[in-house]
Amino acid sequence: MSDRLHPLLAGFPVRLEIPVAFGDMDALGHVNNTRFFRWFEDVRFAAFIRAGLEEVRGRTGIGPILAHTRCAFRVPVTWPDTILAGVRVTAIDEDRFTMEHTLVSREKDAVAALGEARIVIVDYGSGRKVPIPPGVREALEELREPPLA
Amino acid sequence: MSDRLHPLLAGFPVRLEIPVAFGDMDALGHVNNTRFFRWFEDVRFAAFIRAGLEEVRGRTGIGPILAHTRCAFRVPVTWPDTILAGVRVTAIDEDRFTMEHTLVSREKDAVAALGEARIVIVDYGSGRKVPIPPGVREALEELREPPLA
Amino acid sequence: MSDRLHPLLAGFPVRLEIPVAFGDMDALGHVNNTRFFRWFEDVRFAAFIRAGLEEVRGRTGIGPILAHTRCAFRVPVTWPDTILAGVRVTAIDEDRFTMEHTLVSREKDAVAALGEARIVIVDYGSGRKVPIPPGVREALEELREPPLA
Amino acid sequence: MSDRLHPLLAGFPVRLEIPVAFGDMDALGHVNNTRFFRWFEDVRFAAFIRAGLEEVRGRTGIGPILAHTRCAFRVPVTWPDTILAGVRVTAIDEDRFTMEHTLVSREKDAVAALGEARIVIVDYGSGRKVPIPPGVREALEELREPPLA
Repeated sequence: MSDRLHPLLAGFPVRLEIPVAFGDMDALGHVNNTRFFRWFEDVRFAAFIRAGLEEVRGRTGIGPILAHTRCAFRVPVTWPDTILAGVRVTAIDEDRFTMEHTLVSREKDAVAALGEARIVIVDYGSGRKVPIPPGVREALEELREPPLA
Repeated sequence: MSDRLHPLLAGFPVRLEIPVAFGDMDALGHVNNTRFFRWFEDVRFAAFIRAGLEEVRGRTGIGPILAHTRCAFRVPVTWPDTILAGVRVTAIDEDRFTMEHTLVSREKDAVAALGEARIVIVDYGSGRKVPIPPGVREALEELREPPLA
Repeated sequence: MSDRLHPLLAGFPVRLEIPVAFGDMDALGHVNNTRFFRWFEDVRFAAFIRAGLEEVRGRTGIGPILAHTRCAFRVPVTWPDTILAGVRVTAIDEDRFTMEHTLVSREKDAVAALGEARIVIVDYGSGRKVPIPPGVREALEELREPPLA
Repeated sequence: MSDRLHPLLAGFPVRLEIPVAFGDMDALGHVNNTRFFRWFEDVRFAAFIRAGLEEVRGRTGIGPILAHTRCAFRVPVTWPDTILAGVRVTAIDEDRFTMEHTLVSREKDAVAALGEARIVIVDYGSGRKVPIPPGVREALEELREPPLA
């Protein structure tokens, strides 16, 4: 990701730059809605790495699952374009946390979509919810920002 | 879709049977979240055909766009399985309507996910919102059911 | 899959019926080429189950990897349609075998694409090629058919 | 794409840098084969733009369709990684041309896959093959390189 921060990503500590593909568009000539959720996932996993969640998952089998997600579509995206994806933590609870997503179209110089994801920490072996591991909790706090108004 | 209705699809007038693919699963061994939104879309387009929206779109360039969608994930889905997707209309306004989704796992005999989609009718040429065409409105009324409690 | 065999699937012992999705189409209004390879994979995994490869993989960590695949596109596919996918084994060697694919469009009543896949058996742990397990070899022989002229 | 050329992309005049996504991996923990064909498509469309084919398509309804493609998988790709995709033209005929693909894994510093695509020029309206438009032919000649040994 380029060092120069797009102003629309201010307040989003984890950011990713993703090229739009021709094949992301569906027969209506716009990027299909499912791709927006893939872009959310892309930057969410970048945040999971930053928070140490991928390291914990590999070592302990404890990791994040997606419990709920949503997307508000603002502006249609077309190829060619580049998506600037940002994510921040907005709430942290015992065994779960909430993240807020933004997707900025570089071509349109506008927010293409806003979204949210609620993440639960589980033991993949038993499927049971477990508390957020201590080191991860502190790392998530550093990715925390006040939510969008 | 088989004539025998799965009890969990009662109250969902439009239904689709979709095989789960091996490739729908991601590296965590469960179907990736983006596929749930594809299954939502699959049954939504079946409803669009039933409501005459595809015919209107082809003829007039007026059609549905997705303004907002969300998904609550209940039970992980794995391959092999078959998804029974159901959708119903829960609210109809001047230029928009709301649909409610359910995805049932045949293998698990359980609701895998619930969701919602808010659809706006636009003139694809101008991008402007337009009223729901009269015949479509009546067809949507027939797909209307009381929302989930 | 319906019991009534489509004549174009004659000679393909493993068959799968897959609904085409609106979202399978790209901005040119036809199903995107990558989906054909997904349909190949879908029926290939059905064949892997039939040949006992999935059972062996779960038990021993020995399983198939795709070494080479190709697709000849004959007729464009559009939604709505149903794909009838067929696959057969055409060659079996010490540590590898070759499969031949066909995809039939029910709407167009025609072969939409033909393809091939070369599969190598590896120990996923070491990444090394290993001989086809004995029971699997016999099961693959039963899925063998003479190749297309 | 960075200005510094990866040595494995020498001889490929059109190049694209694509981040690998977590969701590109399937349940075997490697990037699914269908994604390789998407990466091929991504860089192919970059070449189509360079050759003026996208401009011609928008103006005349004459454009490329994929007639045949294949991929030889060399090294499994895992997330996180970046793919460097390269493509070149290897043969030009009256109404068709052939392209050669390479995909380099930056993490593994190795060729992950090699491939080929045969493109036919058609009038999308009639579906008929038409000669490569003159300006496009010359632009394709500039993307021509001797094929891999």
